[in-house]
Amino acid sequence: MKILALLTSAGINIGVCVLLLSLYSILRKQPGNVNVYFGRRIAEEHKRLRDAFVLERIVPSPSWILKALQYTEEEILAAAGLDAVVFMRIVIFSIRIFSIAAVVCLCGILPLNYFGQDMEHRKIPSESLDIFTIGNVVERSKWLWVHCVALCIVSCSACVLLYFEYKRAAKMRLIYLTRSAPNPSHFTILVRGIPKSTEESYNDTVTNFFTKYHASSYLSHQIVYKAGKVQKMLTGAKMAFEKFMHIKHTVIEKKSKIGMYRCGLCGCSSNSFQLVRTDFDQNGKKIDISSSDTSIREHEECGAAFVFFKTRYGALVASEILQTWNPMLWVTELAPAPDDVYWSNLWVPYRLLWMRRIATLLLTIVYMFVFLIPVTFVQGLTQLDQLQQRFPFLKGILKNKYVILIVTGYLPSVILQLSLYTVPPMMMLFSTMEGPTSRSGRKKSASWKVLYFTIWNVFFVNVLSGSVISQINALSIPKDIPTQLAKAVPRQATFFITYVLTSGWASLSSEVMQLFGLIWNLIRKYILGREEDPIAVPSFPYHTEVPKLLLFGLLGFTCSILAPLILPFLLIYFFLGYVVYRNQMMNVYCSRYETGGLMWPIVHNTTIFSLVLTQLICLGVFSLKKSPVAAGFTIPLILLTLLFNEYCRKRFY
Amino acid sequence: MKILALLTSAGINIGVCVLLLSLYSILRKQPGNVNVYFGRRIAEEHKRLRDAFVLERIVPSPSWILKALQYTEEEILAAAGLDAVVFMRIVIFSIRIFSIAAVVCLCGILPLNYFGQDMEHRKIPSESLDIFTIGNVVERSKWLWVHCVALCIVSCSACVLLYFEYKRAAKMRLIYLTRSAPNPSHFTILVRGIPKSTEESYNDTVTNFFTKYHASSYLSHQIVYKAGKVQKMLTGAKMAFEKFMHIKHTVIEKKSKIGMYRCGLCGCSSNSFQLVRTDFDQNGKKIDISSSDTSIREHEECGAAFVFFKTRYGALVASEILQTWNPMLWVTELAPAPDDVYWSNLWVPYRLLWMRRIATLLLTIVYMFVFLIPVTFVQGLTQLDQLQQRFPFLKGILKNKYVILIVTGYLPSVILQLSLYTVPPMMMLFSTMEGPTSRSGRKKSASWKVLYFTIWNVFFVNVLSGSVISQINALSIPKDIPTQLAKAVPRQATFFITYVLTSGWASLSSEVMQLFGLIWNLIRKYILGREEDPIAVPSFPYHTEVPKLLLFGLLGFTCSILAPLILPFLLIYFFLGYVVYRNQMMNVYCSRYETGGLMWPIVHNTTIFSLVLTQLICLGVFSLKKSPVAAGFTIPLILLTLLFNEYCRKRFY
Repeated sequence: MKILALLTSAGINIGVCVLLLSLYSILRKQPGNVNVYFGRRIAEEHKRLRDAFVLERIVPSPSWILKALQYTEEEILAAAGLDAVVFMRIVIFSIRIFSIAAVVCLCGILPLNYFGQDMEHRKIPSESLDIFTIGNVVERSKWLWVHCVALCIVSCSACVLLYFEYKRAAKMRLIYLTRSAPNPSHFTILVRGIPKSTEESYNDTVTNFFTKYHASSYLSHQIVYKAGKVQKMLTGAKMAFEKFMHIKHTVIEKKSKIGMYRCGLCGCSSNSFQLVRTDFDQNGKKIDISSSDTSIREHEECGAAFVFFKTRYGALVASEILQTWNPMLWVTELAPAPDDVYWSNLWVPYRLLWMRRIATLLLTIVYMFVFLIPVTFVQGLTQLDQLQQRFPFLKGILKNKYVILIVTGYLPSVILQLSLYTVPPMMMLFSTMEGPTSRSGRKKSASWKVLYFTIWNVFFVNVLSGSVISQINALSIPKDIPTQLAKAVPRQATFFITYVLTSGWASLSSEVMQLFGLIWNLIRKYILGREEDPIAVPSFPYHTEVPKLLLFGLLGFTCSILAPLILPFLLIYFFLGYVVYRNQMMNVYCSRYETGGLMWPIVHNTTIFSLVLTQLICLGVFSLKKSPVAAGFTIPLILLTLLFNEYCRKRFY
Repeated sequence: MKILALLTSAGINIGVCVLLLSLYSILRKQPGNVNVYFGRRIAEEHKRLRDAFVLERIVPSPSWILKALQYTEEEILAAAGLDAVVFMRIVIFSIRIFSIAAVVCLCGILPLNYFGQDMEHRKIPSESLDIFTIGNVVERSKWLWVHCVALCIVSCSACVLLYFEYKRAAKMRLIYLTRSAPNPSHFTILVRGIPKSTEESYNDTVTNFFTKYHASSYLSHQIVYKAGKVQKMLTGAKMAFEKFMHIKHTVIEKKSKIGMYRCGLCGCSSNSFQLVRTDFDQNGKKIDISSSDTSIREHEECGAAFVFFKTRYGALVASEILQTWNPMLWVTELAPAPDDVYWSNLWVPYRLLWMRRIATLLLTIVYMFVFLIPVTFVQGLTQLDQLQQRFPFLKGILKNKYVILIVTGYLPSVILQLSLYTVPPMMMLFSTMEGPTSRSGRKKSASWKVLYFTIWNVFFVNVLSGSVISQINALSIPKDIPTQLAKAVPRQATFFITYVLTSGWASLSSEVMQLFGLIWNLIRKYILGREEDPIAVPSFPYHTEVPKLLLFGLLGFTCSILAPLILPFLLIYFFLGYVVYRNQMMNVYCSRYETGGLMWPIVHNTTIFSLVLTQLICLGVFSLKKSPVAAGFTIPLILLTLLFNEYCRKRFY
């Protein structure tokens, strides 16, 4: 691929981006689209911005960008929750580390690569992109130490930044836990695996157990019911729980001004427990739902229950401690927040969970390998001669210079992009089958799955099948992995650059445009003729966006030393992402539930993986280039990175 | 190796065993050796059995065997603790599973192997041992399904037995925890990583922290002191702790008749806590050591402390719950029993522990590879022609028929055995450096290390270097491992049979003889002229004996299908072990501290590993023998075994 082809691709993408962003800046001003672009605002304020027609409405303007940049972190935290702040920290971390990498690699490595061989250089626009990769450096070059130093600088700064970001994330989570408004879930645990008894009902078993062992703090409980259909159970349990919530909320709202309800974890004086305990004691007798509601009683009980405690400390202790000698009975965990409970999974017997987990793991792996088919097809498209062989009728068209540029530079990643759209729903389905009891847990699990999937199918498959090696065979000999990757990654670097252009930039502008939302809005309004539904505001798709950012991080790290030309494009992507995601968080999405910053460990671990992978690839490259000194310095670097990770695991749990 | 050579080896070993056991039955009756062979008894009873000379004393008798067999499990539990019972369960489990395997394999597989090929059979004594291995079965044999069925039977019965054994072990541990006499350690937690403050001493920090967050159950505490030399600190801390123990013991002994002190875990009514709480409240003011002793105060304090609680439940909750936002500060765990505390490691700062662990891991790995040198030398000895090449002067001697039989059948495993004696002390040293706070924890960690070491250096290195493949290369291609092992294991089966004979049988008879103890006793008595010291009774070396039993289990599983001739020898070993270990537990060793049955997970996991390894090897053999049906049935068997293990991990924590 030549520089010119890259520039064509970049040009198309810049055009598309500018077009879409301008369109957005116009469309957002149309009152008809207000519930597409300001869903969160509307849900919050319940007032419509129905202005009359003015000229300003059809003039593109950058005002939304300025507005997006002006929000402070506190505003985002207040409006979109901790998860949104943590998500923005991923973008900020990426901008920081890749700015450092760009300065180091563009100044230090790019000229070395370009003049790496004694050869006659053509004009830069018609120069092949491979000239800018490490492939152009001769073997035993005395300049390879520069690459090694650059790798050290990038690794060290990444580790330092990661440490401070993790510390910040842990602090934010602590503040989130201590400062958050008292919530019924703080006083509630979810008990599963209640043993079946022939003598007494689940209800009595739970009462007996908790009055016996947690007498001082036990308040009441609510058995989960298994009504024939899922829907029935859902409404039944929801009703019961909302009734409780209502009572509890009134209790808490009355008292919440008096004192903060913190647990022993958070380092607050213990007499605050005393306060709550007495409060609830007084109201304890009022809250007696479990014995009152007879209409729900008719449904079949199942071996799970929400148990309510008088103190937050009591609930915490009960959730942390092993209850019986059999760890599969009386399994306790802190209940998720009311909005966060995934009701349909509550009935799943605890003893089946581990099997479900293994089954979904196998399903995910199978899906990962079935998915190879479109990806290998896409790879075929990047190689023009293979395309001509398969579709002879295209020969005429493929002689046109511009068609070739588009086909090789643009089409492959568009097809890959489209097929990747099927992945998040599938992974969400798998995660649902796994049986998590909270929506946030399901989303976190789906994030991991999508992440593994994306890294395997975008990075490894492209790298390995691009160099026509069967993937499994290539990775079956552990000690050859660095060399294999070292051979393959620089060759595929140009593909990754175009991937950043098409998939990255385009996905951001389509994110801000909300194409699906816009079209659905039009259909509903003008074809179905329904009124707007202000409650149906989407929640932010962390399970697709977090893996996307992390994948670009991986591409950035692995290519930074080998083909530093990717860095400017990546930086533009992250800057654009910074503006777009801030805008979307504040205006479009509504956060109904959240993990409370539990996304950060995913980010941390993935970044460490990317770093170690980069170092392994560089080790392979250095030994291919026969530079024992550089390779020798890389091995301790790998060990130090792993040690750093081990330290972080201890330090941040 | 021929049957005759094997019989020679067996003959020598039987002779040695009978000789040593007879010697033992005589020596044990000598009053001078009473503190070698009845150390535990003496320490318990403090009375000497100094009889006059009678004839009976010099006549060998099997009475000790009968006596050893008559002990019940309760007697062993009472005399030698739960660990001894768990250890005996390993032997019983091995006897059971290998009896089943022996019946199945000797009846089903051995004839098939012997008549596996159309060939002229010689007389059995001069038949090569290889005739009895699976190597003698022709390719595409229609009888391979018998091997497959035998493998299934062995695997299934192993899993069933393992499940019930684990259940039994868990139950015994539960009873141990609930029924054990009240012990200061039940009310004590060990706090490490106390943050250093410039304003107040560690002592005040601990007081403030626990009165603030655990006010209701906190009783008192004892800071650990770091006196210049290790010995100084050791005595200081010991003195302080023993003082506390003394006071506490008197308190507990007064009250222990009134009620049992059980924790919430054990399923006892919660008003028993109330009882203890009030008891300690009354005596709370008396126990105020931390502010009284000024002589210890002079030593430097370090960031660790024993904290005493009023209730066992309070101590448990405090030890289970995360104390602060930083998991490396205020790290709590239940304190080990007073006898079990490893005082010299208490001062180790908690933040250094993870580094120590990694360092010892690396050290262990390095040691494992350095150890290869004697082992490969031993391997050379089994191949006679190599020996003659290296030491030409031996040519004359090696022509003698009996010398050949001894050299090939006996010498190799003796040398291996002797060099293996250096391993447990080294591993114990590494485990000490790791920084465990309890002796039992150190022994458990050393057990793991010795186990890894033994399995790698006895099994894998022998299998792989015996077939002249460099070990690392052989295992570097994961998918070829089954085939590699399938080729190598049957070839080394004869070596393993002799290994069982020499290492197994001989080690048991030298264990019962206590050669070192006997010699040391003589030296002390007649050369140094010292009196006997009844307190210096050794504790049972679990860290050498558990890995030894598990190694023989591994050999038994892997060879059972491929070379079933090993099974009778192995069964004799386990039967002999059953008698010997029971005798030693009751008479020789004293248990000063114990893990409380925590050895069983090691046994379980290792047995699962052995099973899966056996199945993998059989998979390789079946595919080498081109029997797709048998290989096809082995794959689901492997998956089922892994699933079973996964279930056990959930079920037994």
